[in-house]
Amino acid sequence: MNIRLYNALILTMEENRPVFRGEILIRDEKILAVIEERSGCEDTGAREAQISCKDDVIWDVQIDCKGNLLMPGFKNAHTHSGMTFLRSMADDLPLQEWLNDRVFPLEAKLTPEDIYHLSGLAILEYLTSGVTSIFDMYLDNDATAQACMDMGMRCVLASGLNDFTSSIEKMEMDYVKWNLAKDGKVDSTINQITEHPRRSLITYRLAFHAEYTCSKELLSQVAALARRYQAPVYTHMAETIREVENCKHKYGMTPAVFLESLGMFEYGGGGYHCVHMSEEDMEVFSRHGMYVITNPGSNTKLASGIAPIAEYVRRKIPVAIGTDGPASNNCLDMFREMFLVTGLSKLKEQDASSMDASKVLEMATVNGAKAMGLGTSDVLAVGKKADIIMIDLHQPNMQPIHNIPKNLVYSGSKSNVCMTMIGGKILYQNGEFYVGESPERIYAECNQIVKRMLNNITL
Amino acid sequence: MNIRLYNALILTMEENRPVFRGEILIRDEKILAVIEERSGCEDTGAREAQISCKDDVIWDVQIDCKGNLLMPGFKNAHTHSGMTFLRSMADDLPLQEWLNDRVFPLEAKLTPEDIYHLSGLAILEYLTSGVTSIFDMYLDNDATAQACMDMGMRCVLASGLNDFTSSIEKMEMDYVKWNLAKDGKVDSTINQITEHPRRSLITYRLAFHAEYTCSKELLSQVAALARRYQAPVYTHMAETIREVENCKHKYGMTPAVFLESLGMFEYGGGGYHCVHMSEEDMEVFSRHGMYVITNPGSNTKLASGIAPIAEYVRRKIPVAIGTDGPASNNCLDMFREMFLVTGLSKLKEQDASSMDASKVLEMATVNGAKAMGLGTSDVLAVGKKADIIMIDLHQPNMQPIHNIPKNLVYSGSKSNVCMTMIGGKILYQNGEFYVGESPERIYAECNQIVKRMLNNITL
Repeated sequence: MNIRLYNALILTMEENRPVFRGEILIRDEKILAVIEERSGCEDTGAREAQISCKDDVIWDVQIDCKGNLLMPGFKNAHTHSGMTFLRSMADDLPLQEWLNDRVFPLEAKLTPEDIYHLSGLAILEYLTSGVTSIFDMYLDNDATAQACMDMGMRCVLASGLNDFTSSIEKMEMDYVKWNLAKDGKVDSTINQITEHPRRSLITYRLAFHAEYTCSKELLSQVAALARRYQAPVYTHMAETIREVENCKHKYGMTPAVFLESLGMFEYGGGGYHCVHMSEEDMEVFSRHGMYVITNPGSNTKLASGIAPIAEYVRRKIPVAIGTDGPASNNCLDMFREMFLVTGLSKLKEQDASSMDASKVLEMATVNGAKAMGLGTSDVLAVGKKADIIMIDLHQPNMQPIHNIPKNLVYSGSKSNVCMTMIGGKILYQNGEFYVGESPERIYAECNQIVKRMLNNITL
Repeated sequence: MNIRLYNALILTMEENRPVFRGEILIRDEKILAVIEERSGCEDTGAREAQISCKDDVIWDVQIDCKGNLLMPGFKNAHTHSGMTFLRSMADDLPLQEWLNDRVFPLEAKLTPEDIYHLSGLAILEYLTSGVTSIFDMYLDNDATAQACMDMGMRCVLASGLNDFTSSIEKMEMDYVKWNLAKDGKVDSTINQITEHPRRSLITYRLAFHAEYTCSKELLSQVAALARRYQAPVYTHMAETIREVENCKHKYGMTPAVFLESLGMFEYGGGGYHCVHMSEEDMEVFSRHGMYVITNPGSNTKLASGIAPIAEYVRRKIPVAIGTDGPASNNCLDMFREMFLVTGLSKLKEQDASSMDASKVLEMATVNGAKAMGLGTSDVLAVGKKADIIMIDLHQPNMQPIHNIPKNLVYSGSKSNVCMTMIGGKILYQNGEFYVGESPERIYAECNQIVKRMLNNITL
């Protein structure tokens, strides 16, 4: 399949490369060429691909971008897609109550099929917001993966391992299944899911829910696994003051320091939230090249606090951005998150110049890709995955066109996303979905699930 | 013109009235009936209007709402529409520098025609976000009014009077022109603008820029005018700590207390921003029934601080919401503002239950209307102005449908606005504008203005 996207403005997100006018050529799941208009066919990328941008290739699809912007899709570096059933059902409560009184009792009723449909709803929403990859931690990774493969979403799975859910054995099996058994030559313990034609959309990273839901023994087992596979590890970290205080009380150390002491981060990894980090915690992150994955919408709505993002940037700790799950945010919109990253940083630092727009865009795209191990989906360049979005600049919130990165971060909206392409496939265009399933059917399934849940519970 | 909007969910925003299924009938600029499906034609509203909802009336337009939500349009209770030229041109600076080094020098170059086009751009953006009324303070009220009348936006004008711009005489003349001379019988000093066929969209309120840009003498003259016309007065108030400290230093009082001492608020009024209010300031507001008009996007981006909205609500000081101008926010999106009102309140109070969704919706609609003197545009009821928006519930961020007010505030987006109607006229529907001018022409004019400005200035 050859696709040509022409008459576009292009923001490749390569370092220091400004927006230019040009076109992008795509073959199958990859970018064949990124052509700057002034240089035309003489562009290196086009030459290397040995194609003439005008004549030789037969284009299956040619899209006139009408001067709109092409850029890498957003990487939602922390979410729980299956939690869409909790949208507007578990609001206005502090984190621990919210988890214990609302989230856990309702989650206990979920079947894998429920999670499949609920993740499908989240995937639709990601597409409307230009999200082309998600880093998803939820109860049944296989159900999430199945929805992503069926609909075409790129997904990095993270185990939600804790003392009550999943097991170290399951996590190891999943790690092998998704990362090492790409060719299907796997033993019988690995189920058929691995034979899906879109299997390559899925990868897997070692992760556990949080220090406070795992025994020390279990955490040590995770650390051992990380060393065996030389793999990074991810977890919820320093989300609330209470979590940090409890950890200090229990182990005499803050979460990051405690987990490091178990040998958890010898191959790096990352922390979700990281709102309340000590000096020592930040040193742990610096030492191991770890990522902060910030979730400002969720931290705001749950009153968890404002993460010190400017301080992380000063220390060169890389920051990526996630929406968190739809129960705590409640929407899955990277534009909201981007504005909050910069806005809350300005408030926290009491400095309106804190956290400029291009830095935030980098977090939402390049850093997200790196944090998730998706180095081939980070920027728009020859040979990279065709994970591309088109931003409609012909809407009033994008005018006048003076500084496109600032327009995106400060006044951009999901309403500007007019195309979302993952691995060379257009999944969303001009408000329509191309995901092999009708949105209305997915909505009906999800409303049915909510109805069933509410049958036996008082909120 | 008779319009029937049927097969809808309806949120009238009348007190304690939940969402119901039904239809809304519109004649010319007003609501003829709001009909609840279960009661059909027996509904009081319909009966009073003496129409049969099925047969007697010839409908010029009938719209199947397909189960989507009809609700009152949002009231943007503080903005400076003409500042669209500064979008992405004056970011990342503290308020005073931002005003003195960027805003004022560039504004000095604006012509009334520029303001007309720049306001037109803002009006397009309001329509995409479901805004049906604006409370606009800018350099040339007539240019703003002309754009609003030509395009169909309801607008309450506020003078930006200060020591350098406008005059007390001009303000009085404008007050008379827009509020008292409705029938066109006015003296020759009042220009032709008052004869526009959509003149009734415009009203005028006494206002001045801020305590810190007006001499005491000028402020006393404003207060005298307020007493003469028994009129409320509005101004920027307690936006930054520096403003408050300077006022205390100059007059030995905080802004609200100082202005009250001049007799400014004998007929009420309101303060824009109100971030840093003392106990006494709040008492001034309570005493005079004044409105706090909060602008969380702007206060966040300029690092001005978080307003104590929960405290205002506890004291029963009514709160309305505005976007502020596009230079400081940078977008004109009431959904962003609504999330920030609740989210920042939760952060400030360190309480996730602070400021629930229905309270915020009330601020963005009913309270806004009241703050602006638009009592006939507050709710959906018989005889009220047909200022109505339709929210697309068939998008993934609105699913599942469990609690519509929470969906609107916590996960809603301007992308959900599929129709904006002002005074019975549909101005925006399914991404298309019906404002008598092409968006592309407005964009071209605005880009031209920006280009001209940048010719002679270094940013």
